[in-house]
Amino acid sequence: MKFSVESVVIERLAPLLDGGRYPIKRIIGEDLEVEADVFKDGHDVVAAALLWRKEGSKNWHETPMQPLVNDRWAATCSFYDEATYEYTIQAWPDFFASWREEFVKKFKAGLENLWSEMLEGAALVEKAASLSGESDDKVQLLTLGQKMRAASPEEVFAMATSAELNGLMTAWPDKSLASTFPVYGRVRVQREKAAFAAWYEFFPRSAEGKPDSGSRFRDCLPRIDDAKRMGFDVIYFPPIHPIGETNRKGRNNSTTCEPGEPGVPYAIGSKHGGHKAVEPALGTLADFDWLVKEIQKRDMEIALDFAINCSPDHPYVAEHPDWFFKRPDGSIKYAENPPKKYEDVYPLNFHNPDWKALWQEMTDIILFWSKRGVRIFRVDNPHTKPVAFWEFLISEVHKKYPDVIFLSEAFTRPKMMRVLAKAGFTQSYTYFTWRNSKQELAEYFTELTETEMADYFQANLWPNTPDILPLFLQQGGRPAFLIRSTLAATLSPVWGMYSGFELCENAAVPGKEEYIDSEKYQFKGRDWDAPVNIKAHITALNRIRHENRALHEYRNLRFHRADNEHILFYSKVTKAADNILLIVVNLDPFHKHGAHVHVPLELCGLTASEMFQAHDLLSGERYLWHGPLNYVELDPHLRPAQILRIRRWAGKESDFDYFH
Amino acid sequence: MKFSVESVVIERLAPLLDGGRYPIKRIIGEDLEVEADVFKDGHDVVAAALLWRKEGSKNWHETPMQPLVNDRWAATCSFYDEATYEYTIQAWPDFFASWREEFVKKFKAGLENLWSEMLEGAALVEKAASLSGESDDKVQLLTLGQKMRAASPEEVFAMATSAELNGLMTAWPDKSLASTFPVYGRVRVQREKAAFAAWYEFFPRSAEGKPDSGSRFRDCLPRIDDAKRMGFDVIYFPPIHPIGETNRKGRNNSTTCEPGEPGVPYAIGSKHGGHKAVEPALGTLADFDWLVKEIQKRDMEIALDFAINCSPDHPYVAEHPDWFFKRPDGSIKYAENPPKKYEDVYPLNFHNPDWKALWQEMTDIILFWSKRGVRIFRVDNPHTKPVAFWEFLISEVHKKYPDVIFLSEAFTRPKMMRVLAKAGFTQSYTYFTWRNSKQELAEYFTELTETEMADYFQANLWPNTPDILPLFLQQGGRPAFLIRSTLAATLSPVWGMYSGFELCENAAVPGKEEYIDSEKYQFKGRDWDAPVNIKAHITALNRIRHENRALHEYRNLRFHRADNEHILFYSKVTKAADNILLIVVNLDPFHKHGAHVHVPLELCGLTASEMFQAHDLLSGERYLWHGPLNYVELDPHLRPAQILRIRRWAGKESDFDYFH
Repeated sequence: MKFSVESVVIERLAPLLDGGRYPIKRIIGEDLEVEADVFKDGHDVVAAALLWRKEGSKNWHETPMQPLVNDRWAATCSFYDEATYEYTIQAWPDFFASWREEFVKKFKAGLENLWSEMLEGAALVEKAASLSGESDDKVQLLTLGQKMRAASPEEVFAMATSAELNGLMTAWPDKSLASTFPVYGRVRVQREKAAFAAWYEFFPRSAEGKPDSGSRFRDCLPRIDDAKRMGFDVIYFPPIHPIGETNRKGRNNSTTCEPGEPGVPYAIGSKHGGHKAVEPALGTLADFDWLVKEIQKRDMEIALDFAINCSPDHPYVAEHPDWFFKRPDGSIKYAENPPKKYEDVYPLNFHNPDWKALWQEMTDIILFWSKRGVRIFRVDNPHTKPVAFWEFLISEVHKKYPDVIFLSEAFTRPKMMRVLAKAGFTQSYTYFTWRNSKQELAEYFTELTETEMADYFQANLWPNTPDILPLFLQQGGRPAFLIRSTLAATLSPVWGMYSGFELCENAAVPGKEEYIDSEKYQFKGRDWDAPVNIKAHITALNRIRHENRALHEYRNLRFHRADNEHILFYSKVTKAADNILLIVVNLDPFHKHGAHVHVPLELCGLTASEMFQAHDLLSGERYLWHGPLNYVELDPHLRPAQILRIRRWAGKESDFDYFH
Repeated sequence: MKFSVESVVIERLAPLLDGGRYPIKRIIGEDLEVEADVFKDGHDVVAAALLWRKEGSKNWHETPMQPLVNDRWAATCSFYDEATYEYTIQAWPDFFASWREEFVKKFKAGLENLWSEMLEGAALVEKAASLSGESDDKVQLLTLGQKMRAASPEEVFAMATSAELNGLMTAWPDKSLASTFPVYGRVRVQREKAAFAAWYEFFPRSAEGKPDSGSRFRDCLPRIDDAKRMGFDVIYFPPIHPIGETNRKGRNNSTTCEPGEPGVPYAIGSKHGGHKAVEPALGTLADFDWLVKEIQKRDMEIALDFAINCSPDHPYVAEHPDWFFKRPDGSIKYAENPPKKYEDVYPLNFHNPDWKALWQEMTDIILFWSKRGVRIFRVDNPHTKPVAFWEFLISEVHKKYPDVIFLSEAFTRPKMMRVLAKAGFTQSYTYFTWRNSKQELAEYFTELTETEMADYFQANLWPNTPDILPLFLQQGGRPAFLIRSTLAATLSPVWGMYSGFELCENAAVPGKEEYIDSEKYQFKGRDWDAPVNIKAHITALNRIRHENRALHEYRNLRFHRADNEHILFYSKVTKAADNILLIVVNLDPFHKHGAHVHVPLELCGLTASEMFQAHDLLSGERYLWHGPLNYVELDPHLRPAQILRIRRWAGKESDFDYFH
């Protein structure tokens, strides 16, 4: 029990993730609004400030807080470095404001003999002078104090209510009875790519689409240029490391492998090296370095896959046998999911006695590639390694490369997905891949973007992955691909697709959500310009995303009523309401649907009687709408979605240019 | 950033008040259910335990937790001392359970060659033996381990799934990779009187109801016996200390005082002493001690008022002038609420340079009376003193007298009322006094009893106080008194009334919620047995409270639907549903109202087709009810409320005795 003279109560600092255990996330320049309950016994006036600083720094920045209602106070700050910041609240009794309030009341009530009160005021002014160092303010405050001692009540009233004196007194507050909230909120500040990006995944060995041999790093530029034309800005490669030979898998995950088959890139490690080497069939490290530079030249970034899987041929097996699980006879254990066996992979034991060396080596892998210019990592199955390990690795990497972005590929239980985001993962895969109905989508995205999760969990939406070909895509034909890409590109500012999606590839292993003849196991022939492609639609989506700032934000998603169970209606609106998008998607890939949609007029800054323009950025068509109820009709074969930019009518002219 | 091998994630410990900053509250023997999210990477089986201990103790008690759903775990504990306890969660990978799960899967799948797995199992059993000290369990575990090394797969399967081995392995868990939640929840454990009591407040000088002279301590027994007959168990006195003479107030708060007028007991301190003395007009300290014993003999307790008000004659003024606020001329400041002046009271400065001595002296006042047998204090206006002061005082008092109960008389802003409860006040006055309509009552009591507040804020409900005669009582006549007392006595297990209520006194200062001719300022004549009295109703309420355990609980209040806006319908049901009360109150003191009430059958453990008995404990009448919809009719002049005890029909007999 502390024995302190604390005077102002500060409570319920928000945001405060798990009592400050984990940081929330913000982008450079983005607002962070901090709130707290601030109040004091008795009738004294209270003042409060938001304090923030880079973690490790000693000096706080300070912003005055403003009262909202019911003793809740708020202030906003933003950050300009990629770093972790901490913030808290300081509050104190404002003696001068309290004195002023009382003096003004007494003066206005015509009380006589305010001599004592005036001397008290003068003392407060002189106290401020003593706090003001050797500044000009000091001279001014001393002069005002002297003046107050000799002034009439009318003169003191004028001084007490003057902007001059109040400005000076606010600048030099007496914080002798200040309280500071003892728990600090934390925020990880990241570059914009962490929260606004479009990812394109392809296997470099499939770059040219040759059916019986693999492409090399030096062959990847055409595929990359195509992705660039579609508007993607992150090129993501599955593992590029040497592929194991022992128990190598064959096509369609066969346990036998024909000679010449390329193997699974996720079985990492061979005589050519481990996680810090590249598969010779793809080229050399120098080739890779060349490719990274080519990608950067195109104003794009590369993302690598970090899959902690070791083939029996991985150098670690010989160099660090203690890092693996062992059987009683001393042999190394392969992966199992009883009764299934995975004899091509040895799992690592993150709690082996030499765990510190293992954790450091894993960190060194990321540092190795970061040094070569890779600053985005997609992490394979992070939920099968300790959360404490990820927290260690990510914080160690950020010490040297604060700009590194980590994407968590955890398709697992909700709380594990969340804690990985808290522990440091920048972005996460989501259940979006399996959320197809209107209710499912609205419920899930309300949870993602409107609860506490929105402060730390950044969804990266994928309609497909090499591991997942959802039933909706298998069965819904081309419209399904239009629908799912539209949703992914607009429900979150970060989305990605696995190549082949643009070709509407949907041949599955019967009864499973897996691609048949998957390029995970074999070479794959493709015509990247096959006529069925939806590249124009993808290109339009990414263009619209770039041109509309409302789509750069995450927490501004709101769902609205549409009178048809197959039509999803949502908005993305900037804080200043200067970029307003209303999005309607027909979720049924088979049938045309129409619906009255209930436009959120207030959110859009529109009045009930106002005419406004709804400009479909996908088709280019423009509609004149009016009032809250308007009708849309969406044929999945022609146009399953509209992204309507709302423009208000400026002036009385009928010229469309006057909508802004 | 810690560099730890932690393995299991523990999150969202609940209850956890303000991150463990403040304790929640429980009664001796009462259940505390603790929950947390517990999960781990990968597929290992996890085990978890709730740990708790008295604050300051080194050893934890431990109870195994059970999984609920979605990685949420729970366990229950309870406490047997008046003390502050702390609790947290420990969790660890259960290597043996994980091994068992895998072994059973492989065995059932008919896998051959389980030799390696059996040796792993034996090693885990032998590890448990090494953890079991020199117990009998050690011998047994070593024997089982040896046996497993030589057994057949069938025999190992039988051992692995046996209660014997699993019981032993659970008793000696391997916690080498255990995580412990680093933040501790805290709980203040109190005696039952803290949460179940009926208070009766009277001014000892008014004990005999003489119009022109005061009663003394030795005259109080008849009034106390009357309160005892009405079922009250706490006798609460406004301040009993010497009353100031300087600027003494007269009747009806007049600033002039006639000779012989007794003064306001809240202007404390005279030449006869301060807060550790008694007003000579009431008797001596010896008389007071005698009265305390008489009250205790009657199985009741006394509560004293702790009002930190000093009259200009208080000994502190001479002994500790530094404790007061001073004007620039050195004179002591009286209380003000500009432009109003209160020249009979000097406020204390809790932040004066000698504040530690002041805070200690205030604490010593409570210790002084505690030593004389007073263990309940009603604290006047705590919200005008620093919260940190109360936290200090209460914790200091509890070190010596852990059974002391503090009631906060803070009618102020909601967050201040809450933080006083967090800082240590056992109970609080509430806004109940002004909540009259159905919606107001349901909303307010849902907040009090169903939100986080219910864990730390114990409402003590007062329909009136010497300072407040609500409009509802002024205007509603006798029915208003029946209605408000019924609500107070059943909406919370703690209620109180200020004497005169039982006589339906309702004469107010015109236009104000204050008693006219208040005994705060004068002697007051009364016939304590005036015919208008509602003592029989009060007596019935307190009897019903004592006989029904559902009314001893706070968090079991639930509101239900009644099809009339004037009829409030709520239930109080014990956890085991062995005491079920349905309460209906007509909130309109002027008119008869009827309503269909929607009985919460499931909560009552009733089926839709079942006949049951509703026994009105106020009138003694019994009704046969059936299904969810039943009708009530309440005439405020005859019977504004029913407290219906629900009895199920046992067997087929029609004899009412067979309802239980």
